[in-house]
Amino acid sequence: MIRFECDYTEGAHERILQRLLETNEEQTPGYGMDDHCEKARAYIKKACDSENADVHFLVGGTQTNTTVISSILRPHQGVIAATSGHIAVHETGAIEAIGHKVLTLPSEDGKIRGEQVKELYDAHWSDSAPEHCVQPGMVYISQPTENGTIYSRSELEVLSKVCREYGLPLFIDGARLGYGLVAEDSDVSLADIAMLCDVFYIGGTKIGAMMGEAVVILNDALKKDFRYMIKQKGGLLAKGRMLGIQFETLFEDGLYFEISKHAIDMAMLLQKGLSEQGFSFLYHSTTNQQFPIISDRILQALSEKYTYSFWEKVDDTHTAVRFCTSWATKKENIEMLLQDIKALQ
Amino acid sequence: MIRFECDYTEGAHERILQRLLETNEEQTPGYGMDDHCEKARAYIKKACDSENADVHFLVGGTQTNTTVISSILRPHQGVIAATSGHIAVHETGAIEAIGHKVLTLPSEDGKIRGEQVKELYDAHWSDSAPEHCVQPGMVYISQPTENGTIYSRSELEVLSKVCREYGLPLFIDGARLGYGLVAEDSDVSLADIAMLCDVFYIGGTKIGAMMGEAVVILNDALKKDFRYMIKQKGGLLAKGRMLGIQFETLFEDGLYFEISKHAIDMAMLLQKGLSEQGFSFLYHSTTNQQFPIISDRILQALSEKYTYSFWEKVDDTHTAVRFCTSWATKKENIEMLLQDIKALQ
Amino acid sequence: MIRFECDYTEGAHERILQRLLETNEEQTPGYGMDDHCEKARAYIKKACDSENADVHFLVGGTQTNTTVISSILRPHQGVIAATSGHIAVHETGAIEAIGHKVLTLPSEDGKIRGEQVKELYDAHWSDSAPEHCVQPGMVYISQPTENGTIYSRSELEVLSKVCREYGLPLFIDGARLGYGLVAEDSDVSLADIAMLCDVFYIGGTKIGAMMGEAVVILNDALKKDFRYMIKQKGGLLAKGRMLGIQFETLFEDGLYFEISKHAIDMAMLLQKGLSEQGFSFLYHSTTNQQFPIISDRILQALSEKYTYSFWEKVDDTHTAVRFCTSWATKKENIEMLLQDIKALQ
Amino acid sequence: MIRFECDYTEGAHERILQRLLETNEEQTPGYGMDDHCEKARAYIKKACDSENADVHFLVGGTQTNTTVISSILRPHQGVIAATSGHIAVHETGAIEAIGHKVLTLPSEDGKIRGEQVKELYDAHWSDSAPEHCVQPGMVYISQPTENGTIYSRSELEVLSKVCREYGLPLFIDGARLGYGLVAEDSDVSLADIAMLCDVFYIGGTKIGAMMGEAVVILNDALKKDFRYMIKQKGGLLAKGRMLGIQFETLFEDGLYFEISKHAIDMAMLLQKGLSEQGFSFLYHSTTNQQFPIISDRILQALSEKYTYSFWEKVDDTHTAVRFCTSWATKKENIEMLLQDIKALQ
Repeated sequence: MIRFECDYTEGAHERILQRLLETNEEQTPGYGMDDHCEKARAYIKKACDSENADVHFLVGGTQTNTTVISSILRPHQGVIAATSGHIAVHETGAIEAIGHKVLTLPSEDGKIRGEQVKELYDAHWSDSAPEHCVQPGMVYISQPTENGTIYSRSELEVLSKVCREYGLPLFIDGARLGYGLVAEDSDVSLADIAMLCDVFYIGGTKIGAMMGEAVVILNDALKKDFRYMIKQKGGLLAKGRMLGIQFETLFEDGLYFEISKHAIDMAMLLQKGLSEQGFSFLYHSTTNQQFPIISDRILQALSEKYTYSFWEKVDDTHTAVRFCTSWATKKENIEMLLQDIKALQ
Repeated sequence: MIRFECDYTEGAHERILQRLLETNEEQTPGYGMDDHCEKARAYIKKACDSENADVHFLVGGTQTNTTVISSILRPHQGVIAATSGHIAVHETGAIEAIGHKVLTLPSEDGKIRGEQVKELYDAHWSDSAPEHCVQPGMVYISQPTENGTIYSRSELEVLSKVCREYGLPLFIDGARLGYGLVAEDSDVSLADIAMLCDVFYIGGTKIGAMMGEAVVILNDALKKDFRYMIKQKGGLLAKGRMLGIQFETLFEDGLYFEISKHAIDMAMLLQKGLSEQGFSFLYHSTTNQQFPIISDRILQALSEKYTYSFWEKVDDTHTAVRFCTSWATKKENIEMLLQDIKALQ
Repeated sequence: MIRFECDYTEGAHERILQRLLETNEEQTPGYGMDDHCEKARAYIKKACDSENADVHFLVGGTQTNTTVISSILRPHQGVIAATSGHIAVHETGAIEAIGHKVLTLPSEDGKIRGEQVKELYDAHWSDSAPEHCVQPGMVYISQPTENGTIYSRSELEVLSKVCREYGLPLFIDGARLGYGLVAEDSDVSLADIAMLCDVFYIGGTKIGAMMGEAVVILNDALKKDFRYMIKQKGGLLAKGRMLGIQFETLFEDGLYFEISKHAIDMAMLLQKGLSEQGFSFLYHSTTNQQFPIISDRILQALSEKYTYSFWEKVDDTHTAVRFCTSWATKKENIEMLLQDIKALQ
Repeated sequence: MIRFECDYTEGAHERILQRLLETNEEQTPGYGMDDHCEKARAYIKKACDSENADVHFLVGGTQTNTTVISSILRPHQGVIAATSGHIAVHETGAIEAIGHKVLTLPSEDGKIRGEQVKELYDAHWSDSAPEHCVQPGMVYISQPTENGTIYSRSELEVLSKVCREYGLPLFIDGARLGYGLVAEDSDVSLADIAMLCDVFYIGGTKIGAMMGEAVVILNDALKKDFRYMIKQKGGLLAKGRMLGIQFETLFEDGLYFEISKHAIDMAMLLQKGLSEQGFSFLYHSTTNQQFPIISDRILQALSEKYTYSFWEKVDDTHTAVRFCTSWATKKENIEMLLQDIKALQ
């Protein structure tokens, strides 16, 4: 079976495994206080052009979202997100489990706009009895979104401006951040991200690492006691070096961006190939997730050899599905997939 | 610096790293649904002599405790534990953060007795208005305890009997379980553990793995929807295979027990050497954590070359400290430590 | 100012105050264990034709919803409700604060249908990885709804059937239950409510009492330890008799229904009057909340003498507002209001 | 049966009921925005000599403790309290249910000392890895304590000084505050309380009201959005006037203090009578709760005519019990109780 259903089907980039082997016998302090974590933090701060940032390493995305949001909000506040936001739909109510409502905004493409945030905020505060409703307390977006789309620099600037005007910390879920940064139509750099939001994370799990997400806190007001929060929410890895070594390897010489680029190349190869065969797409994605609309007959045939994710029924005979590429995707597999689909037409 | 302050100072057992390399390019489904996890589950169930058990892999101890306890208790119930229990003191209130009180029982050696549980339970239910107090809902113990001591088979049997009589699920935190199972004075097998409790976990992080804890659920009533709980609490690793491969390696041919035994040998070497030099110990530990009482003068001198954990002041000039051995401890380091201490006397 | 903005603008029915005076010097045990609570429970069980029900008295609606829902759900479960449900919009995230997501279903009239519940449930369980999503765990409806509409007996039967088939406890928020039971087009009795749901409450605050809601638990599986939940969530009134005496008075000889009927008569008088003057209504409400659409010019003029609630803008010059009647509404005030509106036309 | 087991066995002070009757037909806005609440706030602020305080009315003690503590702490913080503190033992884990650990300090008399707080705080921050433990975030005390004892002005000053030095808000549970303020040996005024703490509440339930607690927030930093917290935690009474009218009556001309004094007089009468008969007391209480140690034979006989609370067994044949007086206690009942005990000697 050749797997395209997600972007975490292989292990880790070979240089990471190599580095784990080389450092295996070193003795280090636990909980992220080791030299590898220290170096990784330095590399990341440099890449973000943010020397004053705090950088923490956590294990996975749901845990990271929970920890960051729990650290920011007071009990009566909620987090604004797109209806399709990961925290709104695919984290088994992790945000509610720590006490907060996800205040959803409708979105066709996975993005929310500054104007929407403004309207929701104004509506809350113009209510005659706002204390009967959840107070908007922060904004969560994903870059790229769950639909593969990316925010442009100007879209982020508008959002950031609204958030700062209204005192709403802006949190960017970067589980697939690398894939967004190197997309062909992206005009957003890592330093831009760091400048425009209050806290974000750089996903490792889906881009070369075995696991691991690097949280970057820019806003000084959000830095206090964050390690307590990580520990309480179960994310303070005893052998923190495992995360440090991985991010050290990914960021010491640009490996993170290089392998992100490979995934994008593979995604564009797939997109181009399918477009040429006449397929349309549910979303205009320029990143590693592609959502072609394919006839159920072809999908049925493909499923004997390939995996993909069901996304939604488009009509009685067609379905939008998700194919993911990643740092590990082999070009020959994309080519074979395209040929097989062509043969099925 | 030679490190003895904890049992997670090195990376992972080399056979684990080797296996990660060998399997790295395999494509697998995510979230623990891969063949490696499946094999690891089978090995563990066999080692526990419990074919009907459910086995789940989580990343770390605090996360595992939180997930298990959250899954079992209703909101008005608390978990009984020793005052020194990990959940009572060293998890930043993770149990309270999910809504539950830790009902502590005093303990000199880290263990709680069946009789204590019985008394607490009876006291609750003999109150004229028990609904004003937290209802005892389950029992948490650690094997070995945070003090390095171990429960004997008969002690566990008594606890288990009380728990079953009173309908209190018994949960064993086995973060260092291997070290308890192979201790020289242990009369408890993995199958005994599985037979006497309702749910427990086998610690990987401190015994050869990079990270990972294997939860084993014996009581059918506690199995339902456990994967939802793992996901919500942030423990469902996308590349679940990383945990599966590690436990597969540790349990396919007894590596877990073999390397546990090495740690115990090293601990006994240290204990014997210190005893011969006239040192006494805070607790009678037969496992990998040793708590010698040493003069502050010697400790001060040692700290230039070795790390250890402060435990508690014993008198004005002496301190109980913790030295940990592990699967990775080198015999020459123990010998050097003993010589250095001797030279400082 | 003559107030119509809600149904809790006056104190309590005079017979309740009279009874409080008469019983004031009695000495009673606390926390709802007194004879008045006992009698009130008996009256309510009889009115519900449910001798085996458990009846508990709480102080307010949000507290009651929180307590009931917290008592029923496991941590990974959510409660299904209409998007306009009180728990979804007007309780400051109280449900999320106890850890649960409100799974909303769209609704034009405030009601949800059995078919919608079925679809949501089926969609969850047909997902390839349901454990990444909140599991539907119970259903919450309001009778009458927040829009003044009422469920018919057959609608409740369909909902009830779906809920029982799927193992979803059905909880009815009866903050205004009396007004629903005596509405002219209602074919649902209190005994029907008790037969068709698992737990519901009879609102006192809005129907004659100073405060107080009577929770009626029908499903045996939901009865256990409910008093612990009340205490933990802050609803176990020390002088529980205050609630008992009020419900005793309301239910010993049908006062609850009698005064509910008065509110409905007043609402129908208002509705008929406005209809005759040519006004239309946002919802077809047959209960004590009426939502006429009125020109902003008239509303502006009215606001100098009357209060009402803003509901929503209908167009540039018209607004839907809410006028509430209650057990305490004076007929002359309705008549004056109608005359004043007429004069403004 | 003559009841002494608690201080909430009767209804409300007759002037309160009278006022409820007089105001019953007034129409007022809901949720504490009415004139009676406004007046009550003004009276209380004046009595506290704190014009800038925020005053809010809640229904009961557990609810108030939960709301205040939830509003102050961040998720990783706990509240320091005596082991006998109400929040530590008699609120069914309400504080844990909102996510926080109660950090208990041992106490013989129910009071905690500034020095204890200092030690606990210093111990936390001198730990090498404090983030593994719950961070002390505020201090909770009761005045009078659960044992009937009271803090002196100098004891409060020391506590207050430590709290301010360490940035720990000091919260005083005044469920029985009146009884502490008018105790014969009290040197603490309401204005002192207001000056020395950050937030406290004035208990109504146990001193003349049907129910109700008035929260007084002195520290500006703790005022923000408190009404959201009240609503979320279920304490925002729809007919808030019911609370306002009661506190208006209690504070407009000193009724609160006057009836508190009556309870103290009755308690002293009981204490003196029992002392003269040779009984000793478990605690040296100068307030309305008295804890005499009485032979089980006498207690058994008394229980046919009187109620009291079991407190603790003192030896095989004696028990410490609690007798409470209140604003409603009749002198003849105290006298009869003393005579009956004497006759049983």
